[in-house]
Amino acid sequence: MIFHHCGIVGLGLLGGSLALDLRKQFPGMRITGIARRDTALAEAAAMRCEGVRVFSSVSRDLDAVRTADLVVLCTPIKSIIDQLAQLSPIFAAGTLVTDVGSSKRAIMNAAATVMPPAVHFIGGHPMAGSDRAGLSHARAGLYRGATWAICIPPGEDEAAERLIALVEALGAHPLTIDAELHDDLVAQTSHLPHVIAGALTNLVLGGARFDLLEPFLAGGFRDCTRIAAASPAMWRDILLTNRDRVLLALEAMRAEIDNWQQAIQAGDAPHLEALLTTAHQRRERLNQKRLLNADGSKGLGQK
Amino acid sequence: MIFHHCGIVGLGLLGGSLALDLRKQFPGMRITGIARRDTALAEAAAMRCEGVRVFSSVSRDLDAVRTADLVVLCTPIKSIIDQLAQLSPIFAAGTLVTDVGSSKRAIMNAAATVMPPAVHFIGGHPMAGSDRAGLSHARAGLYRGATWAICIPPGEDEAAERLIALVEALGAHPLTIDAELHDDLVAQTSHLPHVIAGALTNLVLGGARFDLLEPFLAGGFRDCTRIAAASPAMWRDILLTNRDRVLLALEAMRAEIDNWQQAIQAGDAPHLEALLTTAHQRRERLNQKRLLNADGSKGLGQK
Repeated sequence: MIFHHCGIVGLGLLGGSLALDLRKQFPGMRITGIARRDTALAEAAAMRCEGVRVFSSVSRDLDAVRTADLVVLCTPIKSIIDQLAQLSPIFAAGTLVTDVGSSKRAIMNAAATVMPPAVHFIGGHPMAGSDRAGLSHARAGLYRGATWAICIPPGEDEAAERLIALVEALGAHPLTIDAELHDDLVAQTSHLPHVIAGALTNLVLGGARFDLLEPFLAGGFRDCTRIAAASPAMWRDILLTNRDRVLLALEAMRAEIDNWQQAIQAGDAPHLEALLTTAHQRRERLNQKRLLNADGSKGLGQK
Repeated sequence: MIFHHCGIVGLGLLGGSLALDLRKQFPGMRITGIARRDTALAEAAAMRCEGVRVFSSVSRDLDAVRTADLVVLCTPIKSIIDQLAQLSPIFAAGTLVTDVGSSKRAIMNAAATVMPPAVHFIGGHPMAGSDRAGLSHARAGLYRGATWAICIPPGEDEAAERLIALVEALGAHPLTIDAELHDDLVAQTSHLPHVIAGALTNLVLGGARFDLLEPFLAGGFRDCTRIAAASPAMWRDILLTNRDRVLLALEAMRAEIDNWQQAIQAGDAPHLEALLTTAHQRRERLNQKRLLNADGSKGLGQK
């Protein structure tokens, strides 16, 4: 067992799934769950895995993680930043603190400012989110096969090794990366698609003509917009803490849409077919790689 | 049995799945398959459903549907338009001709021009496409639960009733609609998402940094771009025959993206959260309706 007492702050899909995995992997580990809402606390207290209680204790009070040697912050990013400040005087020397936030620069900067030298903060981002948020969707194995980005502050390599070992124990793929590069890449692969899916949802489902449109909402539309159902508070914080990179990605997307619009406007069949063929080939390449889904299931049309 | 001899022109996902359904529903029906490529002809000739040969005969020659009382055109839209002209002198009086093209105005106009008065053309569009094109993906039940748009030219109500009965026999939901309105609605629910998915694919997967980006391509990106893998020739024709409506939808999408971009640019958390909340609620409404997928499976995360 790498850690003896894990505090999980924020009991949604990610925090709950982490608790389930830890309970399965490390039956003797003490797991303390922290949430604000009574419903989440009650739900967490009742959670069982193979008959065993998942959380050793649950609490509304952040102070309950004082004795933890591992603390994982699983709340929206602005809350993670607030909690780092609130928790920094509480942590015991040697505690490893990490998070699961989807942008990393703001969190790494906050941790560098508030974390005492004897407490080790390592940034984390498992690519295992879903539009199905909340503790009720938590499941063991959520992280299996997922990339888990790890941002290591200077001098924290040893603490990072312990986090990497934990991530590997969960079946995820740890990937050490600079926060700046991380935020640039996920702006394109995750944050841009989220904005686009949200805009498409609000445009198409927002008009007065929903009843007319509804019979024509088929699998393509559903897939394109699935992620728009995700947690608004979580995504507000992601997009605002990665603002500059998201705006760059949106500008690039506008230019790409221009390409398509011009080909269609001009009735330029060869140009349009070239754009479609490129997209077809690139997307097929992903299918053929049978990329792991964020939810841990295998690719190629299976969910 | 409503029809005795069905000619299916174009043996891809839609034509092949139609043949499988017809063979199951009407064991005595003669089914003639027409394709250009040797591989499709050979594959179709070998197709069996519960041990029975699906196609009574296959041919490269359009003339083979001369004795059919039902002809279904399942090729890309420009080919459908060409085939209407080529077939119009061949059809016997009373033949019912229909198609499965995803835009309807161009096809309805072509049919009105070339079809002899004694031949009945009714436009059709089953919302059952997929990114998995080709005869090898054909399956019985593809159309079950799908909307099947039906465009009826003046004076063709009786022929339309026969087509509607067939569509219902396949388990699809016939929906009589004006071609103009159809093209307007699918521009928003299907054609716009296709352009957006294609643009997103080409932008994100097109750079020199694919190896860096790849670990961060999770379920959200995959779902958003799945339809970009669909047939380029089919989509070239769809987008160009519905050009005006697709361009209107793209303009509206740009304005919607502007909303999001401005909220992010301004760091306007309440505005951004409001946009995200609206999208969340609208997309959840679709989930809760457990809308049928285009591929016939049930909604809410199941595929």
